[in-house]
Amino acid sequence: MAQLPGNPGTGELAMLRAICSRAANISNVRVTLGIGDDCALLRPGRSEELAVTTDLSIAERHFRLDWHPPESVGHRTLARGLSDLAAMGAQPVAAFLSLALQPKLARAPGRRTGNGWLDRFLDGFLALAAQHGVALAGGDLAESPLTLADIVLTGVVPRGEALLRSGAEVGDRVCVTGTLGGAAAELAKLAAHPRRFSRLRSAADLAHHPHPHLYPQPRIAQGLALRRRGLATAALDISDGLSTELAHLAVASGVHIEIDASRIPLGHGATLDQALHGGEDYELLFTSPARARLPRAIAGVPITVIGSVANLRRGVAAVTLLHNGARQPLSPRGWEHFR
Amino acid sequence: MAQLPGNPGTGELAMLRAICSRAANISNVRVTLGIGDDCALLRPGRSEELAVTTDLSIAERHFRLDWHPPESVGHRTLARGLSDLAAMGAQPVAAFLSLALQPKLARAPGRRTGNGWLDRFLDGFLALAAQHGVALAGGDLAESPLTLADIVLTGVVPRGEALLRSGAEVGDRVCVTGTLGGAAAELAKLAAHPRRFSRLRSAADLAHHPHPHLYPQPRIAQGLALRRRGLATAALDISDGLSTELAHLAVASGVHIEIDASRIPLGHGATLDQALHGGEDYELLFTSPARARLPRAIAGVPITVIGSVANLRRGVAAVTLLHNGARQPLSPRGWEHFR
Repeated sequence: MAQLPGNPGTGELAMLRAICSRAANISNVRVTLGIGDDCALLRPGRSEELAVTTDLSIAERHFRLDWHPPESVGHRTLARGLSDLAAMGAQPVAAFLSLALQPKLARAPGRRTGNGWLDRFLDGFLALAAQHGVALAGGDLAESPLTLADIVLTGVVPRGEALLRSGAEVGDRVCVTGTLGGAAAELAKLAAHPRRFSRLRSAADLAHHPHPHLYPQPRIAQGLALRRRGLATAALDISDGLSTELAHLAVASGVHIEIDASRIPLGHGATLDQALHGGEDYELLFTSPARARLPRAIAGVPITVIGSVANLRRGVAAVTLLHNGARQPLSPRGWEHFR
Repeated sequence: MAQLPGNPGTGELAMLRAICSRAANISNVRVTLGIGDDCALLRPGRSEELAVTTDLSIAERHFRLDWHPPESVGHRTLARGLSDLAAMGAQPVAAFLSLALQPKLARAPGRRTGNGWLDRFLDGFLALAAQHGVALAGGDLAESPLTLADIVLTGVVPRGEALLRSGAEVGDRVCVTGTLGGAAAELAKLAAHPRRFSRLRSAADLAHHPHPHLYPQPRIAQGLALRRRGLATAALDISDGLSTELAHLAVASGVHIEIDASRIPLGHGATLDQALHGGEDYELLFTSPARARLPRAIAGVPITVIGSVANLRRGVAAVTLLHNGARQPLSPRGWEHFR
């Protein structure tokens, strides 16, 4: 027929039915048509615009099948997209998930929880989706020699009120949510002892022990609060490392940024280097007007001032770091990828 | 650092800049923020809703690197998504493209047209995007051992007016745009003589010789006209083969459908079997009320009545085919995949 050799993927339909059945438990009022037609239909409020972001997670590059519990892969796939919404101050609406799965991982999942890879991936994915009211409104599924997940997240924000990277103003304070470097520190431990982590199957295991690499918590509530309370002039999420995100912020806003190394809140077991360049903490980096009264924490997550915004000056790096009494240029050394 | 081994993909940033530079030529009034921030921002009209669809195209499964000219891969990647929008009667707004590329294909493209694979992929992709006013508003890019493209298309449709699969009513006529089976017939030729097709680099080559497999034309104008003129009660695109789409239509609408084999418009060189099960023609299948006055063609593409909608009856297949004077059940034999 008109298809290329080797298509239909024997278990695909069964897998799909199981995914749809499990996803049906989470609805969102702005999704007027979900999985099952040519397109999904989203209905933002009349004064809202739609934020859209997409992130590709590839096995052995963004995660490792022999290191990451499948629940963590599902959680992180969704968390990456949610974090982009948080950085805009957007309210999540719907996710679209395209999955390419190696045949050994592509066993049809059970109706609820089973032990197959896809089942456990969905456990992690849907637990986080439920927490944030994100409907799974579509996607695609295929058997493939390589496992990967491409996630699309959509959210809503009042028209003209999204937090952009370009809004930082001279005199603003530079702030972060939570702590930094913890994800890099945990990844280093995971690389050394992957088996120790294989039982970390759910966010429930996190109650007293956060796992910033395996189960990062997207800062949706914090992004919403920053926007609604007028606390931020610019925001972005720290996915690729603080140094890289600071460079993005400085360039987009056309400003100079100075950071004080001693004020950077370090994650559990993290070095300054991990906090500066590690990435994947999915905390928010934002600038706040000098007059704004910043709370110490938002929804339980600490807010820390780490620097300030000034005029760009000829001959001075766009981002500088005060460290041990000396001022030095801070070059982006995090992970570069497409946005 | 906090990244998995083997990341930054040396040429990624250069590739990205080139893609963004080339994509910047196409804008859409409903895209208020494009590539470059955490999310893109889309602003549908106050009385519109947003249609979203996603499609995964994997090398050696949905296309073959040794058969398909890169321009065709780019064109088909976008055409798949556009066809889903056409089937809803939606107006295209923005595309999001996630590309995983084998290193040998991942050379940075030139500012305009060059000869690398990615360059030629973009030639095909952006030519079709320009034709339909689709802005490239985001995406992701990574080097990968496997080449694939995941496409997200967004479009707008007046609230409550999208053409769904579930709207077919008893007494409606069943219709298709264009001709069927041509894509399957061309794929068979491509499989036999891939080199003959390697020079088919652009839609310009199609002026007098359509290439329904390599350069399918999504029926956006036809979908819009069907919706605006009230000519369709239900619609879907024929991506997976007529037999499979008819089954979707019958099930979603809860009706019986009978097709007359002698009325199916065959594409160039196509057999009835290819027209029934081939798929990838990306024509529209729709039902039209008996009272509607159907034009012979919409925007130059013929409209053909191929059957009718009746009540579902116990003991009779949901879809039947009249062929050589006999009525037989028509089972879905096209390609099954996730929507």
